[in-house]
Amino acid sequence: VAVVTGGLGPTEDDLTAEVAAAAAGVPLVFDPAALAQVEAFFKRRNREMTYSNRKQAMFPEGAVRLDNPVGTAPGFMLKIGRCSFFCLPGVPVEMKRMLADHVLPACARLQGSDRAVLRVRTVSTFGYGESVAGEMLAGFDDAFPDLKLGFRAKFPEVQIKIYGHHREEAPLEARMGEALEWILSRVGEKTFSARGDSMQKVVGDLLREKGATLAIAESCTGGLISDWVTDVPGSSDYFVFSAVAYANRVKEKILGVSAETLETYGAVHEQTAREMARGVRRIAGATYGLATTGIAGPGGGTAEKPVGTVCIGLATPEGEQSRRYFFPFPTRLMNKQIFAMTALNMLRRELAGK
Amino acid sequence: VAVVTGGLGPTEDDLTAEVAAAAAGVPLVFDPAALAQVEAFFKRRNREMTYSNRKQAMFPEGAVRLDNPVGTAPGFMLKIGRCSFFCLPGVPVEMKRMLADHVLPACARLQGSDRAVLRVRTVSTFGYGESVAGEMLAGFDDAFPDLKLGFRAKFPEVQIKIYGHHREEAPLEARMGEALEWILSRVGEKTFSARGDSMQKVVGDLLREKGATLAIAESCTGGLISDWVTDVPGSSDYFVFSAVAYANRVKEKILGVSAETLETYGAVHEQTAREMARGVRRIAGATYGLATTGIAGPGGGTAEKPVGTVCIGLATPEGEQSRRYFFPFPTRLMNKQIFAMTALNMLRRELAGK
Repeated sequence: VAVVTGGLGPTEDDLTAEVAAAAAGVPLVFDPAALAQVEAFFKRRNREMTYSNRKQAMFPEGAVRLDNPVGTAPGFMLKIGRCSFFCLPGVPVEMKRMLADHVLPACARLQGSDRAVLRVRTVSTFGYGESVAGEMLAGFDDAFPDLKLGFRAKFPEVQIKIYGHHREEAPLEARMGEALEWILSRVGEKTFSARGDSMQKVVGDLLREKGATLAIAESCTGGLISDWVTDVPGSSDYFVFSAVAYANRVKEKILGVSAETLETYGAVHEQTAREMARGVRRIAGATYGLATTGIAGPGGGTAEKPVGTVCIGLATPEGEQSRRYFFPFPTRLMNKQIFAMTALNMLRRELAGK
Repeated sequence: VAVVTGGLGPTEDDLTAEVAAAAAGVPLVFDPAALAQVEAFFKRRNREMTYSNRKQAMFPEGAVRLDNPVGTAPGFMLKIGRCSFFCLPGVPVEMKRMLADHVLPACARLQGSDRAVLRVRTVSTFGYGESVAGEMLAGFDDAFPDLKLGFRAKFPEVQIKIYGHHREEAPLEARMGEALEWILSRVGEKTFSARGDSMQKVVGDLLREKGATLAIAESCTGGLISDWVTDVPGSSDYFVFSAVAYANRVKEKILGVSAETLETYGAVHEQTAREMARGVRRIAGATYGLATTGIAGPGGGTAEKPVGTVCIGLATPEGEQSRRYFFPFPTRLMNKQIFAMTALNMLRRELAGK
């Protein structure tokens, strides 16, 4: 089985069907049912179909059309020799749906009774490099020669993956559970999800469990924390308000940071972060207030506060805390990401009672 | 020349050097100078080097080490037969830097006097599908048989690309300028940058030109607009404040949306968007106020206001405007993106006097 993605669209550089037909040595043929589907898709969305969408109904002779319930481009399966080529759209959401609907069932049929169970477990960790993760887990291959360990740097988190396959599900699940325990005993301190959840999902679940709400004051992260938090469906249950306060006068006027603090310590300081967290918690009437202020770069750094410096403040019903960090990453976007992740992690540890 | 990326890290699944050595039939050898570089990198950042980083100083015999000034993993070039394999780190910022430092100069040397000039021009467009873009530009291949046209759907924008190559720079530039004019005469209305800039860069440049400032009130976009705007270095010149107001009481209390409006029209309405824009402009003391309120899904939709509905408000020194849109995309994240882009595009058109 070969899976091909992309090139099924209506424009002139979409050539998958043409190339597949040439490879198989067959002509392209028009499929009226496919055209009807494309037409129906446009009709449902009140958009007009253009002539070039007709191109999406041309398939190599002998191909089996694969319906696309979430987009305009149907895919197709074409057998060339002993290989089944599944040609799917490149748009991730469409590709994933069609992989599940068409390709995976076909693979299962092909494997028949030889089929092995495959499982992947993902552990989401944060706060160290991939190399340290590798060192901490040295010995895995000896302890679990039947499983495979992988690392994925999904900046700023490091995902640890356990891959396993076995003829039967129950012993595989048990074995992978053992491996998971082994891993957590070594990197538990750095782990924020033992099932691959995102930091914002973990924080959101903890807030919901406690019936607590969150307000955020962002300076250097510029809205990224809020964007992440609200990527989680249902986040309106606990996310109340966020203030992205770039200008000092906004920190003062809206968040209530004292003019004295700004004058004495500057915008990037633990005291400022603390007052931002306190202020946003108060004006939003939230259980927790989380704040960031720092220097994402490329400009704005000084000898005392270089690019990569961030102060994070957290206000809780019990009081306030804040901390300064320095990160050595080379771009503004990486700094925004590591600052945002560090802030959410501080909140997560507080919520988890660590 | 072949370029290989990734697999140069310190963990056990980083196998590029090993595989390259096996392919070339040579052993791996230890490079003390490379180790010194890795050590220096860690020292500059006050981090401790772990034993496994030593792995990064092992290269196939005969390989030329390629220094990595922005990360821990040096790359290498290994000639196998007539092909030069450039093995670079997978981290994009490191890969790009080393591509520029090492690979491109090597390519130029290889091409010598046979070298052709290659150019790509990118036009950033928004507000229609890839298929419509293709139709509007039908005829390009006949008008410019010496150039190549490409499309890239970088949701929610559609990038149009012109590829050209020629032995000399001046005639190529002139020809690509003609092609650009031809394209703009057909999709100018949908174009927000004729040089491939992002929407947030274009909006930021227009604000800076006018000496104007921006405040944003986000509901359904949850901070994404602010995050995009602040991805641009120097955005503190014009970006003042953003309020991510999920809860109705926050819209009322902080942004000053009237209780009557919220009761009569609900949170998702043109009138609410208008008052949010007016409110955030006022409290931040900004030239422009931009607001979004809508339903990103998956929950929260109604027959009257289905998932995909958004109202965008814009407050300017001259007054306020607002508009309702409906988009048919299948995920929460796509909705956040198209809502954010539509809002910035409304501001862009206002700033450009359209």
